[in-house]
Amino acid sequence: MRKAEQLKQIVAKEAVNYVKDGMKLGLGSGSTMYFFMKELGERVNNGLKIVGIPTSNKTAEWARDFHVPLTDFSKTQELDLAIDGADEVDPNLQLIKGGGGALLREKVVAASAKEFLVIVDESKIVEHLGKFPLPVEIVPFGWEVTANKIAALGCEPERRIVNDNVYITDNGNYILDCKFDKITEPEKLNNELQSLVGVVDNGLFVNMTSKVLISNPEQVKVMDKES
Amino acid sequence: MRKAEQLKQIVAKEAVNYVKDGMKLGLGSGSTMYFFMKELGERVNNGLKIVGIPTSNKTAEWARDFHVPLTDFSKTQELDLAIDGADEVDPNLQLIKGGGGALLREKVVAASAKEFLVIVDESKIVEHLGKFPLPVEIVPFGWEVTANKIAALGCEPERRIVNDNVYITDNGNYILDCKFDKITEPEKLNNELQSLVGVVDNGLFVNMTSKVLISNPEQVKVMDKES
Repeated sequence: MRKAEQLKQIVAKEAVNYVKDGMKLGLGSGSTMYFFMKELGERVNNGLKIVGIPTSNKTAEWARDFHVPLTDFSKTQELDLAIDGADEVDPNLQLIKGGGGALLREKVVAASAKEFLVIVDESKIVEHLGKFPLPVEIVPFGWEVTANKIAALGCEPERRIVNDNVYITDNGNYILDCKFDKITEPEKLNNELQSLVGVVDNGLFVNMTSKVLISNPEQVKVMDKES
Repeated sequence: MRKAEQLKQIVAKEAVNYVKDGMKLGLGSGSTMYFFMKELGERVNNGLKIVGIPTSNKTAEWARDFHVPLTDFSKTQELDLAIDGADEVDPNLQLIKGGGGALLREKVVAASAKEFLVIVDESKIVEHLGKFPLPVEIVPFGWEVTANKIAALGCEPERRIVNDNVYITDNGNYILDCKFDKITEPEKLNNELQSLVGVVDNGLFVNMTSKVLISNPEQVKVMDKES
């Protein structure tokens, strides 16, 4: 296993310790979550009672593979704990997410959880958000106008293309990957983006995270809201 | 023709006088716009040169029927004038729109126009917005959570059902019709709604309208931004 994979596995294993019997979980997406789902499945096989809401079809698939019981928002509207990876984490626990394209579902799930636990390896920790292009989900109708308005906020938006095709989210929208370089005021930028007509959501997760677990080759460090 | 239809026809006829040669137009949706499109088509047949971007398939159909030339946002990102109806208009020219379900496209078009002209009959003029249930467009995933959060803002949200089926917008989303009764601060409510995870857009059109034409049986009155 490559070193990057090992770091993901280590932090995922540690995260499962935060899951308590009877919890309703939000289950994030992405490669670190693969290891989390695998580990969670083992605990379930050993008797842990939980249910989870997945943020992507991929995560739902892993849940089936590893025997993690699923539910949905028609049955429960409040989750105890959501767990997910991130593309960037700043010292105030603000995040950029959405590299994988599932940002909207991830945000809905995180926003409905009492606690939001983020699991990353140390390469995701940054002084300032923005080196990672910020994904912004926008409606296809009039997307050119929306892109111009977003550009006026100080970035270069690029419509996401995957395998020569325009990328379409699970919700039927486009993603603009927006190169800001340095986002000094994530909360302000988030509000500006959300108020733009045509913007469905964006990859800034502001004031949502309660705890971040960070793995490096020696240990797993914990970053708390208050620290 | 019924009286209500006559009032729509009268205000639509007056609105066409605001269209100048060479303009790029935003073309709203709804029954008043039917009469506008018909009248606009007559002017086009008499030599008026314009192009328009429609906000719904229905409006695009009327454009074809009445020979109004269409364009789209890949060719032009700024419109000179958008024309549309409204469900409610308050004394500050704030609107509720979206009874017909096309609020998102209507808002994208209105927001990309230099001037936004609203055409209504006098029954749409209210002291306070909110008697008409505010349409809020939300993503289907986790809609129950989103509905709870919107209810917490002081309304009764009801998912729109049409002919016994859940209504799906052109963008694949749900509409919640939210009974507020009285919206005293439209701008504040608009910001609160837009900041909620899961909300795509809502029917409040705040600080977007430059002029409202209002028909009653005697005349067409003009309400201006400054008056």
